[in-house]
Amino acid sequence: MPVRVQPARSYNVVSVDDHVIEPPDVWQARLPANLRQRGPRIESGLDQDFWVIAGERRGGVGGLSAMAGRRFEDYTPKTGRFVDMRPGCYEPKARLADMDKDGVDAQVLFGSMVGFAGATFVDLAQQDPELAHACVIAYNDWLASEWCAADPARLVAQCILPLWDPEAAHAELERAVELGHKSVLLPALPQLLGLPPLADRSWEPILSTCADAQVPVALHIAGSMARQQTAQLMDGPLSHGSGVAGETLVATAPLTNFGIFAELIFSGIPARDPDLAFVSVESGIGWVPYFLERMDWTYTRHRFWTKSKLTELPSFYFRRQMYATFIVDDAGVDALERIGVENVMWESDYPHTDTTWPDSQKIIKEHLGHLPDEQRKKIIADNAVRVYGLDIAS
Amino acid sequence: MPVRVQPARSYNVVSVDDHVIEPPDVWQARLPANLRQRGPRIESGLDQDFWVIAGERRGGVGGLSAMAGRRFEDYTPKTGRFVDMRPGCYEPKARLADMDKDGVDAQVLFGSMVGFAGATFVDLAQQDPELAHACVIAYNDWLASEWCAADPARLVAQCILPLWDPEAAHAELERAVELGHKSVLLPALPQLLGLPPLADRSWEPILSTCADAQVPVALHIAGSMARQQTAQLMDGPLSHGSGVAGETLVATAPLTNFGIFAELIFSGIPARDPDLAFVSVESGIGWVPYFLERMDWTYTRHRFWTKSKLTELPSFYFRRQMYATFIVDDAGVDALERIGVENVMWESDYPHTDTTWPDSQKIIKEHLGHLPDEQRKKIIADNAVRVYGLDIAS
Repeated sequence: MPVRVQPARSYNVVSVDDHVIEPPDVWQARLPANLRQRGPRIESGLDQDFWVIAGERRGGVGGLSAMAGRRFEDYTPKTGRFVDMRPGCYEPKARLADMDKDGVDAQVLFGSMVGFAGATFVDLAQQDPELAHACVIAYNDWLASEWCAADPARLVAQCILPLWDPEAAHAELERAVELGHKSVLLPALPQLLGLPPLADRSWEPILSTCADAQVPVALHIAGSMARQQTAQLMDGPLSHGSGVAGETLVATAPLTNFGIFAELIFSGIPARDPDLAFVSVESGIGWVPYFLERMDWTYTRHRFWTKSKLTELPSFYFRRQMYATFIVDDAGVDALERIGVENVMWESDYPHTDTTWPDSQKIIKEHLGHLPDEQRKKIIADNAVRVYGLDIAS
Repeated sequence: MPVRVQPARSYNVVSVDDHVIEPPDVWQARLPANLRQRGPRIESGLDQDFWVIAGERRGGVGGLSAMAGRRFEDYTPKTGRFVDMRPGCYEPKARLADMDKDGVDAQVLFGSMVGFAGATFVDLAQQDPELAHACVIAYNDWLASEWCAADPARLVAQCILPLWDPEAAHAELERAVELGHKSVLLPALPQLLGLPPLADRSWEPILSTCADAQVPVALHIAGSMARQQTAQLMDGPLSHGSGVAGETLVATAPLTNFGIFAELIFSGIPARDPDLAFVSVESGIGWVPYFLERMDWTYTRHRFWTKSKLTELPSFYFRRQMYATFIVDDAGVDALERIGVENVMWESDYPHTDTTWPDSQKIIKEHLGHLPDEQRKKIIADNAVRVYGLDIAS
């Protein structure tokens, strides 16, 4: 597999959280012959396409994950068929055209069926680790060498790992970085997947390698849910009119990263490895001023009896090596000074329900237009170029 | 039992979250003779006093709950004896003297052994509902008619309820309000105690009565933990040097109310009952601007497929009838306009680790001194007088 060289270019608008809907042939075209039959494939019902893995239905496609361009009145949690979605959801040339329409130079990409951090294959590994491992490799190959290859300077790949096997995960991380992946996706709460928490020593080799390779670790909200769990929610309470559950989930999901980032900092992980960067994806930024103040207050009052691992205020580590991303967040933008203008990045969340597409330019102008040009430029492009190591034309 | 009349006075500083450590004889002096032997009493070990209920140890006294006046260097999670605590923790005359020293006119009071919302007796009711019910009555009698009777205009009682029995809870609420209790304590997450969530219809009679009687519902952070669970944490990881767990818990506990208040609003409970007030106690306020913006965004985009119960933006209901309290919260004070100056109240959290005692005046000046007098007055007194219905001298 050739090393992908990302061509240099200039960036005016970079979105750091967008989503690819994996097309039907990702695994069938790539898995070794002996695994192909059990590997992920699409089965079509009357009005729905389903992912089937190892003979088991793993949920549908589309629904709330593919609403870009629809009126809010037409949003629906009901999953559907590929032909019902905008082609930009799964087809790279169409995606680039949609990005052009929206004035977005680059998107940093997450998968869909795989789970934000590959949780679907952690599930699968419990019954078939060989197949699960091959699925991870196939996804990373496909994303970097095929989908993003349509324009590698504009479509930025992030890798998933065989998380259940620390040695294999470490090897895949090194391979993926060689392939051109610019970030690694980890689940914020691995314990929900039966894995040790991120503060556990077993994650150290992976985290050290990320630090050495200057590859940020991205923790997407709700990123510890397997596709199947999301599907259960979508096909269960969310599709049967329990609107309260849906509204509460959508409104509160961003805050799940509050506890994770506090635990990471107090665990001493960023303190140990100053080159290690963490991105809190789709969490919003409006809560960060409170978060930093509360952590510093806790440290100041409690560090004696807790025998804290830290030697600096917790906010020091956040500002040095942590980032949070937002779509629209007036409360956070008002409080930029308290967060750190270097620590926030904008995202368009294409093609999910919260996306700004196709109005990103208008929305950026409305919500960030009052900022000094240099600050706005950092938030909508320069911070992302630095954090993800994009090559800029000099 | 005579109805307690709260004398009118003027209030310059009201703290809406402070804690009584129940003295040893609360239940032994009040329970009916046939229940007394199994009722809560203090058993003394070599260097520790323990609560014993129905023959079972239910955790110690003091520790992080009684640190007022200590240097941060001397904070300890190790529970101890009554004689090791400041008498202001458990003795009302001493409390009033401590309040004088701190310039605090009134404190709104929570219990300790009983759990912030009486969760200890919800636990107990599983094995002995008769004893548990009598314990709730004894606590409410003791707090309003004895402890707070030392100066009922300055010591403000909040009642607990026999939550496991909706009819008995409703009756006790009416009795407690007659006794002079100014607020009712409910657990934010009753499901953790095996009870229906607050949005369940079984809570309606209690919530309606609160609305009719203009008695606010106070939801204290971590308020769904029984004393025994807290004790397990205190005597377990927190006392054995797992500082990361302790720091993360302290830093993140306030945010547990984010999800609860979102669910309450989306459930349509405040919409149904405009006179019903909810107080988010010790949650801080710095996250509220993000919370309101995120709820409104969710409603705007998702209300069609969720078939929302609301007819106004979620922030409307918060501003109309919800309140959040803080100790020190510069991020929130900076963003007061986004929260609503009528919706925030100050607290001193005596005698817990986060308390401002004995420096409340200095801390108020440092963190609220720059506000216009009228705004500051609302935050440190007037809002509390209104929400808790304190009688002011005209």
